Amino acid sequence: MPVLAYVLFKVNSGTEREVCQKIVAFDEVLHAEIIFGEFDVIAKISASDLDALEDFLSQKLRNVPSVVLTSTMVVGREYRGKNQRLKST
Amino acid sequence: MPVLAYVLFKVNSGTEREVCQKIVAFDEVLHAEIIFGEFDVIAKISASDLDALEDFLSQKLRNVPSVVLTSTMVVGREYRGKNQRLKST
Amino acid sequence: MPVLAYVLFKVNSGTEREVCQKIVAFDEVLHAEIIFGEFDVIAKISASDLDALEDFLSQKLRNVPSVVLTSTMVVGREYRGKNQRLKST
Amino acid sequence: MPVLAYVLFKVNSGTEREVCQKIVAFDEVLHAEIIFGEFDVIAKISASDLDALEDFLSQKLRNVPSVVLTSTMVVGREYRGKNQRLKST
Amino acid sequence: MPVLAYVLFKVNSGTEREVCQKIVAFDEVLHAEIIFGEFDVIAKISASDLDALEDFLSQKLRNVPSVVLTSTMVVGREYRGKNQRLKST
Amino acid sequence: MPVLAYVLFKVNSGTEREVCQKIVAFDEVLHAEIIFGEFDVIAKISASDLDALEDFLSQKLRNVPSVVLTSTMVVGREYRGKNQRLKST
Amino acid sequence: MPVLAYVLFKVNSGTEREVCQKIVAFDEVLHAEIIFGEFDVIAKISASDLDALEDFLSQKLRNVPSVVLTSTMVVGREYRGKNQRLKST
Amino acid sequence: MPVLAYVLFKVNSGTEREVCQKIVAFDEVLHAEIIFGEFDVIAKISASDLDALEDFLSQKLRNVPSVVLTSTMVVGREYRGKNQRLKST
Repeated sequence: MPVLAYVLFKVNSGTEREVCQKIVAFDEVLHAEIIFGEFDVIAKISASDLDALEDFLSQKLRNVPSVVLTSTMVVGREYRGKNQRLKST
Repeated sequence: MPVLAYVLFKVNSGTEREVCQKIVAFDEVLHAEIIFGEFDVIAKISASDLDALEDFLSQKLRNVPSVVLTSTMVVGREYRGKNQRLKST
Repeated sequence: MPVLAYVLFKVNSGTEREVCQKIVAFDEVLHAEIIFGEFDVIAKISASDLDALEDFLSQKLRNVPSVVLTSTMVVGREYRGKNQRLKST
Repeated sequence: MPVLAYVLFKVNSGTEREVCQKIVAFDEVLHAEIIFGEFDVIAKISASDLDALEDFLSQKLRNVPSVVLTSTMVVGREYRGKNQRLKST
Repeated sequence: MPVLAYVLFKVNSGTEREVCQKIVAFDEVLHAEIIFGEFDVIAKISASDLDALEDFLSQKLRNVPSVVLTSTMVVGREYRGKNQRLKST
Repeated sequence: MPVLAYVLFKVNSGTEREVCQKIVAFDEVLHAEIIFGEFDVIAKISASDLDALEDFLSQKLRNVPSVVLTSTMVVGREYRGKNQRLKST
Repeated sequence: MPVLAYVLFKVNSGTEREVCQKIVAFDEVLHAEIIFGEFDVIAKISASDLDALEDFLSQKLRNVPSVVLTSTMVVGREYRGKNQRLKST
Repeated sequence: MPVLAYVLFKVNSGTEREVCQKIVAFDEVLHAEIIFGEFDVIAKISASDLDALEDFLSQKLRNVPSVVLTSTMVVGREYRGKNQRLKST
């Protein structure tokens, strides 16, 4: 069963769009969004297991230029909304 | 164009699952996940505009029992991952 | 010279509007807004000096029902935007 | 209807005044203040919609030299203080 | 392979010792310490997998009386100190 | 050699003064101040050693009514200002 | 009446002692301590008024090399401990 | 009696493994782990007393290249889990 995680990013000022374009090029990144708040970008990640997740974060995602800081939230359990039950996330 | 937002929740200890089941019953909630980290639950919301989002958060979502604290991140721009480009989020 | 301060509020879930209506009734509150983010409400305060500010916060503002937590940022220096230079804040 | 937002800034040590002078030169910045606390500067922004806000933040505001980190709080609803009801913010 | 995690706790004022005594009674808790800082207690947890971790946290650990807030950090990779290489953690 | 520590407090809204009056009655509290910011009160503590500090915090200070949350910063090394070198802190 | 404030510092890794030695050379700094926790150093400041405090922070204190980030808590009201009532702070 | 402490690290993006390898080479580091969350690495430290801890942190640990920020939690009291009572930590 794959491990899902959300990653919040702070990036160098003014590089939000560039970072998003780079990270969605990785197979592990399901989608990314520029957000307003304490963090600049959120991305949803899928990895085969915790080892693969650690490997992806430390060897690939965090090496993307202009990524200053990441905060990762591993998903423990998923709940679909009413209108999403026939679709994959 | 609808407004998307992620909401992070801290909930009363031990009520994570119950809160998730309740919030995915709202039309505005696309999906919710129990997460490991500083927050307990994350949900993705879709509202028709900022007014409707404020209304949904203050009148419905934050009134769900056991929700202690929420932190909202409005989405400014979306990027799809390679494997997601044919699917809706 | 009066002391200005911004106060950020976390309020009981679902009471944002009620809290705003109550706090703008105080003379010291210039305006209040419901915000999306880590905090729920922001208000701008004007007090005659630091003593009066401490008094207003501890004796009045923080005693408003449903106010759970406040974080105060005293203003050190003001800069007007180009379109605001003829108006008071 | 325009979108309002507060932006909190951390700036390079000792550049608070310089950053304020630069950001109030943008049409979108209503006013800015140097503050005491976790953040160094707060500014109030007005943009035509969420897209324009994202554009302004990522392309202009966050590119101001010495801006290290921003945290944005989109306004959902406004309340005027008693003494402010005849004036614009 | 078991999943390891650190859990940081804020507990009701004055209940640190009582909470520690209760949580070390669970098989999943390797050890707990009262700490000085933003959090009151830290514990190291071992669970068979992410599902079991989520289950333990939401059904057992977070239901311990006086636990107000937890923040969980899942371990991705372990490194032993020089003097620890012959011992288990 | 005694252990010194600063303790930051969040207290129930409107109880700052009452909490300060109570905590300065303890021998271990050198002084306390109501502050503007994320926390409401700061106090400087002196204890005979780390054990005594833990004991004082968990058995006395955190049991003061209206204290919601504390964050402790143990002092590692002291530096006196020029005008303070002849006085004790 | 002078304005008192506590300033919390994050400094470049390994420069804590050097920063403390530099900041206690300013007349406005009553004392400084290296602390264990989220921040590295705390200092107590006395300035003639809020303007002078803003001036001291932005023009002097935050320009000390190796100071990365400061967080300021202006003091609203002071309470002396039992054993401190005959001494100045 | 030795002083124990947990240190949380933020490190330069992509250097987690390198930092862990370096810090476990110090005698004072019992073990280190790469973690998912707000911080990147956690380490458990043992020092002879608070002075030695301050010395180790400011002169050695925080000087490790790629360490950006540390947050230290001094241990006040330890509790062993049921399965750990015959082993040292």
